[in-house]
Amino acid sequence: MPTKVTEFDTITAISTPPGEGAISIVRLSGDESLAIIQRVFKGKDLTQVASHTINYGHIINPEDQAIVDEVMVSVMRAPKTFTREDVIEINCHGGIVATNRILQLLMSYGARMAEPGEFTKRAFLNGRIDLTQAESVMDLIRAKTDRAMQVAVDQLDGSLTHLIKNLRQEILEVLAQVEVNIDYPEYDTDEMTTKLLLEKAQLVQGRIAELLQTAQQGKVLREGLATAIVGRPNVGKSSLLNHLLHEDKAIVTDVAGTTRDVLEEYVNVRGVPLKLVDTAGIHETDDKVEKIGVARSRAAIIKADLILLVLDQSEPLTVEDRELLEATADKKRIIILNKTDLTNQIDRAELLTLVSESELIQTSILTSDGVTDLENKIAKLFFGGIENSQSTVMITNARQIGLLNQAQQSLTEVISGIAAGMPVDLVQIDMTNCWDQLGEITGDSAPDELITELFSQFCLGK
Amino acid sequence: MPTKVTEFDTITAISTPPGEGAISIVRLSGDESLAIIQRVFKGKDLTQVASHTINYGHIINPEDQAIVDEVMVSVMRAPKTFTREDVIEINCHGGIVATNRILQLLMSYGARMAEPGEFTKRAFLNGRIDLTQAESVMDLIRAKTDRAMQVAVDQLDGSLTHLIKNLRQEILEVLAQVEVNIDYPEYDTDEMTTKLLLEKAQLVQGRIAELLQTAQQGKVLREGLATAIVGRPNVGKSSLLNHLLHEDKAIVTDVAGTTRDVLEEYVNVRGVPLKLVDTAGIHETDDKVEKIGVARSRAAIIKADLILLVLDQSEPLTVEDRELLEATADKKRIIILNKTDLTNQIDRAELLTLVSESELIQTSILTSDGVTDLENKIAKLFFGGIENSQSTVMITNARQIGLLNQAQQSLTEVISGIAAGMPVDLVQIDMTNCWDQLGEITGDSAPDELITELFSQFCLGK
Repeated sequence: MPTKVTEFDTITAISTPPGEGAISIVRLSGDESLAIIQRVFKGKDLTQVASHTINYGHIINPEDQAIVDEVMVSVMRAPKTFTREDVIEINCHGGIVATNRILQLLMSYGARMAEPGEFTKRAFLNGRIDLTQAESVMDLIRAKTDRAMQVAVDQLDGSLTHLIKNLRQEILEVLAQVEVNIDYPEYDTDEMTTKLLLEKAQLVQGRIAELLQTAQQGKVLREGLATAIVGRPNVGKSSLLNHLLHEDKAIVTDVAGTTRDVLEEYVNVRGVPLKLVDTAGIHETDDKVEKIGVARSRAAIIKADLILLVLDQSEPLTVEDRELLEATADKKRIIILNKTDLTNQIDRAELLTLVSESELIQTSILTSDGVTDLENKIAKLFFGGIENSQSTVMITNARQIGLLNQAQQSLTEVISGIAAGMPVDLVQIDMTNCWDQLGEITGDSAPDELITELFSQFCLGK
Repeated sequence: MPTKVTEFDTITAISTPPGEGAISIVRLSGDESLAIIQRVFKGKDLTQVASHTINYGHIINPEDQAIVDEVMVSVMRAPKTFTREDVIEINCHGGIVATNRILQLLMSYGARMAEPGEFTKRAFLNGRIDLTQAESVMDLIRAKTDRAMQVAVDQLDGSLTHLIKNLRQEILEVLAQVEVNIDYPEYDTDEMTTKLLLEKAQLVQGRIAELLQTAQQGKVLREGLATAIVGRPNVGKSSLLNHLLHEDKAIVTDVAGTTRDVLEEYVNVRGVPLKLVDTAGIHETDDKVEKIGVARSRAAIIKADLILLVLDQSEPLTVEDRELLEATADKKRIIILNKTDLTNQIDRAELLTLVSESELIQTSILTSDGVTDLENKIAKLFFGGIENSQSTVMITNARQIGLLNQAQQSLTEVISGIAAGMPVDLVQIDMTNCWDQLGEITGDSAPDELITELFSQFCLGK
């Protein structure tokens, strides 16, 4: 990984979300940034202004001097910038046409359209951030809840990097010791070295295991927990959905890269982002759902990681209820006995032959009774032990989880190799693999293709 | 209208479009801006930095010192700012959760959530811009084509204001003359004054008439021209639509204020923004459209200001073709005789009994033959005379058109009053009305309710 600024061409992109808004930003990064903006800017001489200043003026088309927009131009000179290169940010009046026209002008005067994530990629390649920090930038943008955001912010601050670097340091020390022994075989310290290798392997393995324990929660925080609300008609599904949605906790997100396709709906329940599956069916009246029947519920159940199964306890169990109880038996689920404001008609003893006590919760969504309990139950199901430990380092990312699992496997081979009496220089190979795999997490030993792939997942302009 | 900075509370809003993006901006304006940001910012002492500088640091929650985001804070002190008040812009990593959390923090430390358009309203109330400039800010954001954008940019630069102020000056001069005559009736100059009033009224009326002539085009530029593509199945509607869409000219816009309802589709044809009506029907295969039939076309025809009626000239006219020709007879329309690559089967003489020659155009959308002609025809239909006059002052706005019509009416009363031999001091009242009505356009004499109403149409954060 280079630690000094590398020479690149100058890139540009619109860095604010697409659409009509008060302000849009067009960003430039690279050696030519100042020269290019100077060509299309009417106002102060930007090559002469101090770094980190904001300058009023107009973007003009140099060919006919026509004004394109009234703008504020931020000039930030290398190296104290996001990319460590010269960065120009043009704050313009927003709108789709004017913003695109400025982008086009910059491109006709020498800037190249940036690829998705290319600004952040440069920050990485120029040594300002490591890979876990780059990933946390993406996570921060996509965070669905405060908790998810906090994990991303901690990681952006380098907390995971710090932890990984410590583990690598531990491994490096023992590897150095092994080198000494291989170079000076006359000192017969094989036994001592083997003991040291074993100790370190176990120590590091324990630490990685702790990290991996956070992965399940981390993934939920990052991607949301696919949740289906199911139940036969008129048990209170729409009311439950509305109750969860109405407390201003719903976030609707465009699926990346599309402007008019699927919208994902998230509900934040005590920090757990529930990604609602098939709400279209629930948003409609219960009558319509009736026509669609259990088949549709089954499809939703398959896609979901958590099932909220609503039963109407004011009526005896129906065939449909039983079918749904059966269809969700293997799933993580909460069985909601709704309508406690009415007389109970469900035979509890019979119900307990079908579900476990711990899955049950009683509510009257109509009167809001028990809804808080339900929310607590959802939160507890996923964040049982760690609810209050705000700054836990948490693994949120499939790539990081994969590498930690690989590192864990390498350590297992170190340990079994020692147990089988393998020579130290063979055991050393596995330990070195572990060191490399951990390094790949932070990007210290990441291959080029990985880096290209990783940054391509970013949004444009980042 | 006040011309010096008025005292207001401090407001805040997210000023970038909603959604996930590389950068989001949270903006503060008002006396307390610096004090508020100082409470939640960790980094330099922002009260001590120079104006128009960009400062790296973190937004923190002062209660637990937890980091909320890594940010760049722009400090812009009054009066050289957008609102003429102290303005702070926080550029954060984007994303819905982090951005909202920063907004919440600013509000808990004393900022009030801004109303839509409130930043621009302050720029107006503090005398930095007038009403036509404020309106042009909104037009700029919503512009659908380069032409529309250019008109908005010119207006933002004050071109319309300048023109209106000149007209008001003309009126003011003659009103002053009338005052002299009323105050000194002993000089019997009534006749001269009446002559002067008449001359000025006719002069101003002529200028306003010129302005109003641009209104039709202006409105189209601003709002798009509602356009329906109609025709029976398999004549080439989808191909035409795709042809227009495919040249990267399509802009899809969220209808203001919704995130998941109707999307409007615009096609930019030689600077004319066509707002396509009922493209859902056309996007589907022609087979499906067949089922929907002429009834749906009729609905689209009613909503449209321009009809593109596609006929298949390789087949004789059908009953359906005739029905569509009849249904569009009163509309501005272009009749597209498509499939010129095949043998003509339409009896032109008969066709000319139903349509006028000038409405016809021949194309083969399949081979792109004639499509350029079609685009030129659309452009000519709406921008005949003024296509090349880039910097024409153009009225684009219903409010402005309404006031110009009122002013015109007042002038008509001046002229007819003089013809009827009404006393000068009565004629003077109509002339004063005209002066007021023109003043309302720039906001010099605009009532408070109008100002409130006008700015409420802006997007949040502007």
